[in-house]
Amino acid sequence: MKKGEATRQRIIAQAAPLFNQRGYSGCSLNDIMEVTGLEKGGIYRHFENKEELAAEAFDFAWTTVFDRRTHELSSIADPLDRLKQHIARFGSGTIIPGGCPLLNTAIDADDGNPVLRERVRNALQEWRAMLGKIVEEGIAKGIIRSDLDPADVANHLIASLEGGMVISRIEHNDTALRNVRSHLETYLETQVRNPPVKHSSGNSN
Amino acid sequence: MKKGEATRQRIIAQAAPLFNQRGYSGCSLNDIMEVTGLEKGGIYRHFENKEELAAEAFDFAWTTVFDRRTHELSSIADPLDRLKQHIARFGSGTIIPGGCPLLNTAIDADDGNPVLRERVRNALQEWRAMLGKIVEEGIAKGIIRSDLDPADVANHLIASLEGGMVISRIEHNDTALRNVRSHLETYLETQVRNPPVKHSSGNSN
Repeated sequence: MKKGEATRQRIIAQAAPLFNQRGYSGCSLNDIMEVTGLEKGGIYRHFENKEELAAEAFDFAWTTVFDRRTHELSSIADPLDRLKQHIARFGSGTIIPGGCPLLNTAIDADDGNPVLRERVRNALQEWRAMLGKIVEEGIAKGIIRSDLDPADVANHLIASLEGGMVISRIEHNDTALRNVRSHLETYLETQVRNPPVKHSSGNSN
Repeated sequence: MKKGEATRQRIIAQAAPLFNQRGYSGCSLNDIMEVTGLEKGGIYRHFENKEELAAEAFDFAWTTVFDRRTHELSSIADPLDRLKQHIARFGSGTIIPGGCPLLNTAIDADDGNPVLRERVRNALQEWRAMLGKIVEEGIAKGIIRSDLDPADVANHLIASLEGGMVISRIEHNDTALRNVRSHLETYLETQVRNPPVKHSSGNSN
């Protein structure tokens, strides 16, 4: 890596927790100068503007979080167990200060700031595609009900987890997140898992 | 209402959509001066500081949204139908520009800003208590399963709805919110509704 590229990466890595904690408006150039020890010119040599830096910082934060959430998930053979492991892992421990970058930046980039919003949308699509693929694999293997829409299942998981995190953030405890994890376990077992075929004579319902 | 109080209320009402859209850091005194047509002194005669104004603006926005979400809910006799109506109504139409104030301010007030955070916590508790009471009534009437924890059910509903809104905000469409509403309908029917007592001889499970 050339020195210029190394400096660029360092600025991104140091700015990422700041943007994640304080938001785009709440994070000033002065804050970034302070944390990097660089002057204004030394920062903007590497980025067109604050928006580009914020977008790169988001990608850095998201990749860090997403890698942790999906780490070695593929080593779990059963797709349903893989979904469960992903759920169990969500929100446990601080990966990057400020909490889930997707949640923070979704709210932050909502009004104005199209570059940042595009990155958030890509991150969400990546997450949904990852979960959707697991569901598809489960359907192909006969473990997951074939009448389910993978994107719909993924949306339900993501919405529940992110919403649980919103409540936990407000209350500074993880009660809601634990509630949500438990509900999702039940959901996976009762609504997602392919029920075993009954060979015995059942009732006509 | 005295003139001073009327002016105070007007500032709150006009500042509320601004704070809700732009967040605490993203909303400057200049923005508030512009929208109210008042000078700095004319604003801070009524509020100790920006934090107090933001807190009052949050309460205004939340009350507006909460009133709409709960409007005439009590006229629905069946508690389960009341929960369903609340879910159906969530996120439909713009009540206040910028979307759900609870979501926006939860993320915004997370780091620093304890006054605002306290208001958000109160709002969440109000919402959960309202839903919890409906669940309790449903249990008392034998419509809802008696082994359920009302706060847990409420957390699940709130988390799903708020999380669905996060996704819908990112994607600028309501697909995720519709997915969530449909999942919650299923949840209420399969996990929350008291199953009819079976009088026939069943199996021993």
